[in-house]
Amino acid sequence: MFTPQKKRFCLVADSGEGDNLSSAFDKALLNAKVGNYNLIKITSIIPPKAIQTNKITLPVGSTLTIAYDSFTSKKQGEVISSVVAIGIPKNKKNQGIIVKTSGFQEKDTLVEQLKKELVESFNNRSLELEQILTKGIEHTVINCGSVFSGVALF
Amino acid sequence: MFTPQKKRFCLVADSGEGDNLSSAFDKALLNAKVGNYNLIKITSIIPPKAIQTNKITLPVGSTLTIAYDSFTSKKQGEVISSVVAIGIPKNKKNQGIIVKTSGFQEKDTLVEQLKKELVESFNNRSLELEQILTKGIEHTVINCGSVFSGVALF
Amino acid sequence: MFTPQKKRFCLVADSGEGDNLSSAFDKALLNAKVGNYNLIKITSIIPPKAIQTNKITLPVGSTLTIAYDSFTSKKQGEVISSVVAIGIPKNKKNQGIIVKTSGFQEKDTLVEQLKKELVESFNNRSLELEQILTKGIEHTVINCGSVFSGVALF
Repeated sequence: MFTPQKKRFCLVADSGEGDNLSSAFDKALLNAKVGNYNLIKITSIIPPKAIQTNKITLPVGSTLTIAYDSFTSKKQGEVISSVVAIGIPKNKKNQGIIVKTSGFQEKDTLVEQLKKELVESFNNRSLELEQILTKGIEHTVINCGSVFSGVALF
Repeated sequence: MFTPQKKRFCLVADSGEGDNLSSAFDKALLNAKVGNYNLIKITSIIPPKAIQTNKITLPVGSTLTIAYDSFTSKKQGEVISSVVAIGIPKNKKNQGIIVKTSGFQEKDTLVEQLKKELVESFNNRSLELEQILTKGIEHTVINCGSVFSGVALF
Repeated sequence: MFTPQKKRFCLVADSGEGDNLSSAFDKALLNAKVGNYNLIKITSIIPPKAIQTNKITLPVGSTLTIAYDSFTSKKQGEVISSVVAIGIPKNKKNQGIIVKTSGFQEKDTLVEQLKKELVESFNNRSLELEQILTKGIEHTVINCGSVFSGVALF
């Protein structure tokens, strides 16, 4: 058995352009400063008392657990966005909740949607919501564009 | 290198209703008692000699490796189900096998399908199948419904 | 915090035939010698100084982090392929990059596509590409066929 609770979290979001979907996604990851880790997708909980940091300080090639969403499109001129949001509980002994979404919308539209989701998630758990952190990216596709947002836990 | 074998497994399954797909899925996870973990999706092996437990005893916010399947629908009045099954080998030195499925079917239909899959999986490995454990959930969609089933390893 | 860098990597690829998609995929995993692990999907980085090995020596039932792709089809007589490629950097202090793809193409077509992707990935990182390793499988569907390729890190 090995189930450590992560101690730190970091919100990331950025976009990338490339010749194809794979390259655009790779650039979005690099711009978001997670392109040289082995991402492991997780669901959506910030452990109690985890601390926010603005930098991921792991060695290149490390595995990185991260709740993330992304969207990639070749529709030139279209707006694409990706947003993550974290609900911080009033009682710091409780967990935070991560929600995320992406698509052909403006960033602000997605942020509003996620705020509603967080209110529901906190209601579902009978927790009191104190604060919402968001991080997102909006991008107008030039050739082939990708948007990425996530919350890394480490 | 770090590759621990998990020692315990726990079957879970439940459903949730919400205003939207995200909230319904969140409630299904909470009802299945895994909604406050960071789920990491795995494939399908029960390590030899792992022990079944009926409760997951990790701290909130822990990462939890789990083989799972889910299905979410807005088709009001439709039946949706999600089922996991584990094949237990006759020789306890061997591994168990997890299979899972979800969709617009009744639970019993999915259980029968999974039993056939387990027979094939055991044949593929030349192992003798002693017993099949199943856990599933069947739900009739009210507004927006979600079903979830899984086998957590920890 | 627990973020070990993996020390070894192993390329795998193989195919399987079955009565249904699930069984075909299971056989492909078994033929590729990863069918008795709990696969955890990762993205795409070979840690600096990791060593290639041709055998995965973990106990049955272990979790195995692996970048992989697969494709399964019931279109009898059709060719399906799955390929992974690794770009090895000239400077061994740098990371390697994994790319992968699958589909209704011949293996050689996918290999050429991945080579182009690696050139872009290395350009994106301003790294010098020394060598490309590839592993792939091509399969003509009989009844229900599956192809799988991956790079395991452990």
